[in-house]
Amino acid sequence: MKTAQILIVGDEILSGRTTDSNSNYLARALFVRGVRVQRIEVIPDNLILIGQWIQNCHGLTDFTFVAGGIGGTPDDMTREGVARGLGVELKRHKEAAAILLKYYGEKINSDRLGMADLPMGCQLIENNVTHAPGFKIKNIYVFAGIPKILHAMFEKIQNEITGDPLFEEELKLKVGEGDIAQFMRIINMEFPLLELGSYPTLDPDKGYKTQLVFRATSQKVVRDALARFKELQAGPTLKKV
Amino acid sequence: MKTAQILIVGDEILSGRTTDSNSNYLARALFVRGVRVQRIEVIPDNLILIGQWIQNCHGLTDFTFVAGGIGGTPDDMTREGVARGLGVELKRHKEAAAILLKYYGEKINSDRLGMADLPMGCQLIENNVTHAPGFKIKNIYVFAGIPKILHAMFEKIQNEITGDPLFEEELKLKVGEGDIAQFMRIINMEFPLLELGSYPTLDPDKGYKTQLVFRATSQKVVRDALARFKELQAGPTLKKV
Repeated sequence: MKTAQILIVGDEILSGRTTDSNSNYLARALFVRGVRVQRIEVIPDNLILIGQWIQNCHGLTDFTFVAGGIGGTPDDMTREGVARGLGVELKRHKEAAAILLKYYGEKINSDRLGMADLPMGCQLIENNVTHAPGFKIKNIYVFAGIPKILHAMFEKIQNEITGDPLFEEELKLKVGEGDIAQFMRIINMEFPLLELGSYPTLDPDKGYKTQLVFRATSQKVVRDALARFKELQAGPTLKKV
Repeated sequence: MKTAQILIVGDEILSGRTTDSNSNYLARALFVRGVRVQRIEVIPDNLILIGQWIQNCHGLTDFTFVAGGIGGTPDDMTREGVARGLGVELKRHKEAAAILLKYYGEKINSDRLGMADLPMGCQLIENNVTHAPGFKIKNIYVFAGIPKILHAMFEKIQNEITGDPLFEEELKLKVGEGDIAQFMRIINMEFPLLELGSYPTLDPDKGYKTQLVFRATSQKVVRDALARFKELQAGPTLKKV
């Protein structure tokens, strides 16, 4: 099983000013590619915290995705934070600098050029939207925080991200969770390789609803468990004499 | 400065099936009350991971908010995880059990009653929506994951959450980040108590835009910094002779 974690860097998320949509985009894209996201964390635009996080956590999963804080203003600290966390130098990347020079022309300045200061040894991730590149170093992919750019960057590298296909089936039930918990326990015992999640939704007019999600790396397990659940829910049937 | 952290428990967030809106709601509600969110983390419905997180992290901030996983199905592990993380027993809470019995009537069963199994010593957080209570223990507030219920629970306890008022002003600029980075550096030097964040947005038709956010516990600092920024951006003015 391939695993990933997502680090979102941004004071604006922590203050509630901005809703983070990047983690959901990445989580779904990774799930579809068979990679399990084990954690998502949001931390401030703080050099020490970013560095510590990278140092302590980057080895914990197969892939690490970082979003936000790679721009050219003083509150953008992710490039340097990743470099410090890995104990490598932050250095002007020639190819990145050339891209920025070409794109900005006479509007280039030292702040914009600063976006080419990247951890030594990284590879660029192109960005056809605003041209300031993201980068990859070790198992860490670092993207811009603007969703449209993040999507474009992910698309550039998505073929490098492969895991084990996951199968998922959903059952929409018009009962409360408490009515099916007993069946879920039986399913959990009979299908140890299955992951079974129950998600209640509230609809005061129409009563309780529950989404039951069956998930496994084997499609057969998903199908068999689903069939078994329906059988359990239908209750004991009378044998014809 | 009062601080908080938010733990979201839920496989459905990590798989991208569901977009977490609870952390944004809490982040904004806490910001408004003058409490700084230092981190948001999403972890799986896993007893060991929840227990470890609580044990390692609950002391790091003034307040800890946990959302999700307090229902009555086998994938709901937050009640037990919090108990384990704090090293206290999970025990049937009499008042919670009475609430559930009264609400469910003849639809009560052992799974539903299981929602009254709570860490010893906790206080209930009432829930007028579905009645299954949240709880508070030490500095940890544990809420349901369904947004409507979480909001209702937060409202019940919000008066306990007080920090230092924060002031925020926003400037919408029709320039790219790279054009104002130089002024931001000056502002950062001149106003050490200010937090200055720059958030670019992309609008291909209308060119670059930047939101510049000024934030501080002193309203004067915010206003002075804002005025100084405008002065810097206007450039040197010619003195009349």
